[in-house]
Amino acid sequence: MNHLVSIDQLSQTELEEILDKARLFEEQPNRDLLKNKVVATLFFEPSTRTRLSFETAVNRLGGRVIGFSDAKSSSTSKGESLKDTISMVSNYADLIVMRHFLEGAALYASELNRVPIVNAGDGANQHPSQTLLDLYSIRKTQGTLYDRTVVMVGDLKYGRTVHSLISGLSNYRPRFIFVAPEELALPEEYKEYCRSHHLPFEETSDFSSEVIAEADILYMTRVQRERFVDMEEYERVKDVYRLTADMLSPAKEHMKILHPLPRVNEISTDVDDTKFAYFVQQAGNGLFVRQSIICHVLGIDVK
Amino acid sequence: MNHLVSIDQLSQTELEEILDKARLFEEQPNRDLLKNKVVATLFFEPSTRTRLSFETAVNRLGGRVIGFSDAKSSSTSKGESLKDTISMVSNYADLIVMRHFLEGAALYASELNRVPIVNAGDGANQHPSQTLLDLYSIRKTQGTLYDRTVVMVGDLKYGRTVHSLISGLSNYRPRFIFVAPEELALPEEYKEYCRSHHLPFEETSDFSSEVIAEADILYMTRVQRERFVDMEEYERVKDVYRLTADMLSPAKEHMKILHPLPRVNEISTDVDDTKFAYFVQQAGNGLFVRQSIICHVLGIDVK
Amino acid sequence: MNHLVSIDQLSQTELEEILDKARLFEEQPNRDLLKNKVVATLFFEPSTRTRLSFETAVNRLGGRVIGFSDAKSSSTSKGESLKDTISMVSNYADLIVMRHFLEGAALYASELNRVPIVNAGDGANQHPSQTLLDLYSIRKTQGTLYDRTVVMVGDLKYGRTVHSLISGLSNYRPRFIFVAPEELALPEEYKEYCRSHHLPFEETSDFSSEVIAEADILYMTRVQRERFVDMEEYERVKDVYRLTADMLSPAKEHMKILHPLPRVNEISTDVDDTKFAYFVQQAGNGLFVRQSIICHVLGIDVK
Repeated sequence: MNHLVSIDQLSQTELEEILDKARLFEEQPNRDLLKNKVVATLFFEPSTRTRLSFETAVNRLGGRVIGFSDAKSSSTSKGESLKDTISMVSNYADLIVMRHFLEGAALYASELNRVPIVNAGDGANQHPSQTLLDLYSIRKTQGTLYDRTVVMVGDLKYGRTVHSLISGLSNYRPRFIFVAPEELALPEEYKEYCRSHHLPFEETSDFSSEVIAEADILYMTRVQRERFVDMEEYERVKDVYRLTADMLSPAKEHMKILHPLPRVNEISTDVDDTKFAYFVQQAGNGLFVRQSIICHVLGIDVK
Repeated sequence: MNHLVSIDQLSQTELEEILDKARLFEEQPNRDLLKNKVVATLFFEPSTRTRLSFETAVNRLGGRVIGFSDAKSSSTSKGESLKDTISMVSNYADLIVMRHFLEGAALYASELNRVPIVNAGDGANQHPSQTLLDLYSIRKTQGTLYDRTVVMVGDLKYGRTVHSLISGLSNYRPRFIFVAPEELALPEEYKEYCRSHHLPFEETSDFSSEVIAEADILYMTRVQRERFVDMEEYERVKDVYRLTADMLSPAKEHMKILHPLPRVNEISTDVDDTKFAYFVQQAGNGLFVRQSIICHVLGIDVK
Repeated sequence: MNHLVSIDQLSQTELEEILDKARLFEEQPNRDLLKNKVVATLFFEPSTRTRLSFETAVNRLGGRVIGFSDAKSSSTSKGESLKDTISMVSNYADLIVMRHFLEGAALYASELNRVPIVNAGDGANQHPSQTLLDLYSIRKTQGTLYDRTVVMVGDLKYGRTVHSLISGLSNYRPRFIFVAPEELALPEEYKEYCRSHHLPFEETSDFSSEVIAEADILYMTRVQRERFVDMEEYERVKDVYRLTADMLSPAKEHMKILHPLPRVNEISTDVDDTKFAYFVQQAGNGLFVRQSIICHVLGIDVK
């Protein structure tokens, strides 16, 4: 039985197969591949974007959706264990897409091995469908996944999508520039990962025009107030990692700005109309990538 | 691209075309016109009746629904802008039906012009599908939209449906009688609208049998406690604008009582079994009118 | 018009017909019997398991679902009466499945007689689809409904499923052993019911190995803290009615443990891997039984 719990579990071949099939869905998203299939979307914490994107994927494939968008209206609020909830839903659904606030929840669910599990985010840990849509967006806008200089900006400490993208790009000779305030710097384990995989990287807290000039991909993330112990520090840095249109003049022609969304203030809206903005289309790619993921774990052939 | 943001944007021809096609849906609501279409119902504030009615409309047309019923489980709670939410959902859905607590939200969304927008209520402003179902109900029960005496009772100050219905009837030579307590009287701008469109009207705070005797349509609305600054005033008026069965003896044979629902106390349940009560069927007409609206904005031909 | 409000309204023939047809759905749950049908699931209080199970049933039959999972996002929060809510939804749906926190709510809704009503639980009163899936599970595991010794354990005072199962088994010569703390003992009216229907029963507060040895079916229920006036009493009894694997050595070979779920602590997880555990499959049977119930009330033939 196939699950998608972590980006690391995919071989390079599998990963590229998922991206290749996503392109077929981009050409034609409406396909009757899930007839008679029921997919459960279990969101133990809310995530509108991810949920709507998965539910659109299922609907455009002709499947049906059951589920909940918030743990407050689930049996969990009556004290039911995750194991029992997953066992119960496995009786009804052919596939479970789950978002959980605890790290490891999706792995645990997959080990019950009742129906295929797709991890739609577990705490600060993994969010593989986001990473796959990031990769899809990089390949689509750059023509290749190889040899990209990826500048990652903002919260590199807690940013789950940042950590997964480092791993997802590891076979494609990336060069990273990590731009973050000290409090939110990339944890040592991910730097160690880069070293052991021979992925060159630089670190800086200075979101400078030199750094922007280097980027093929500028990957922005939210600097969340609640991550800071020291509110003065937050007030000091919050505007430093904010991207505005006037900062983009040194950018390469083909540079694209990605963001896992939702954004709050970290990308000024005057960036939206520049040729560099790609984060809305990036989210749109999520539909095709998720259709591809669903077919991958269910072993459904796509042509 | 077609949107339905306000009743005023429709020409008389368009308005009547929507009503005519609604009649076809009343004859046969189950039609496969939305195959492969996904409709998003984005309810930034809850409105069960409107949401269920739109979702039934989509389902009976063979389309699929995604969405949320409350902003608390949406990205908005993470600080996402309306623009970003609409842009994101436009990637997934072919049509957005939205309810928002702020006036102008639907207009703003429509100006992004990504996918057609249907306004399902924006603050105290507009709720065009309600007005169209009111008009449909008037035409169906009276045989015509022309020359009706419409008595409007209750909260004429904040009642969005009252304001839109005045506008929706303006081409059909209506006569209005506005019955409201002073604190909830029709705002001057709508009286000015009546004058400039040569729509005769009278105003009174006396919900008398003479007034009821005049009505072809008796349009009741809720007098909500929270609209009153002065609680004593509320206690004084709340029962004055309550309709009971014994008040209906002077009514014309063909008179019908409408109400945008939900009702609380303003129509006594002993009215329900009289021949004058039409508010439940009125809500039922909402299904057919909304099917017609959806096909109108999507440019789908109905026969 | 058919409704399913209470298990008592079914004749023995009808009850067995529903179970027989459920077996056909177990063989093939995906059937296009509800094409063009809309089913409303109105959950005035949350119940994930029951809701997901009904919604899966509708989806696998090719129908469409509208509804709400919590009264907080329904018109009820605006003060709408149950009558108005049911009347409104009857305009849209072909069938209403409803869960309500008040006893008698489903009966009241069924008396409006607008569309068929299926009671998915009304307060402490009835939950007939649960009883039918309990009976289905008993018949399936025991080969018969007749002459079973059913040991019921835990909260027999408020346990709605316990009361309904006594009634549901009354034609099948059951013998009951009721195991409960004094505060949660079976109410006198149900004991009187047993006497008047000549159903032999014993009562004890001792969850002993002798009792377990007698059981064909061991029906466990939750002992909820909020049921106790005296917290010391709760602390004293809560572990007494907890089933662990080591207590199962005297059990009959074919004995099966049922539980209406969700469970919290009353069945230890070390029971899950014993051959006696059946509560997960029991919940799974809910899908087939609910498909059968829906077809029964809608008068749809199943072959």
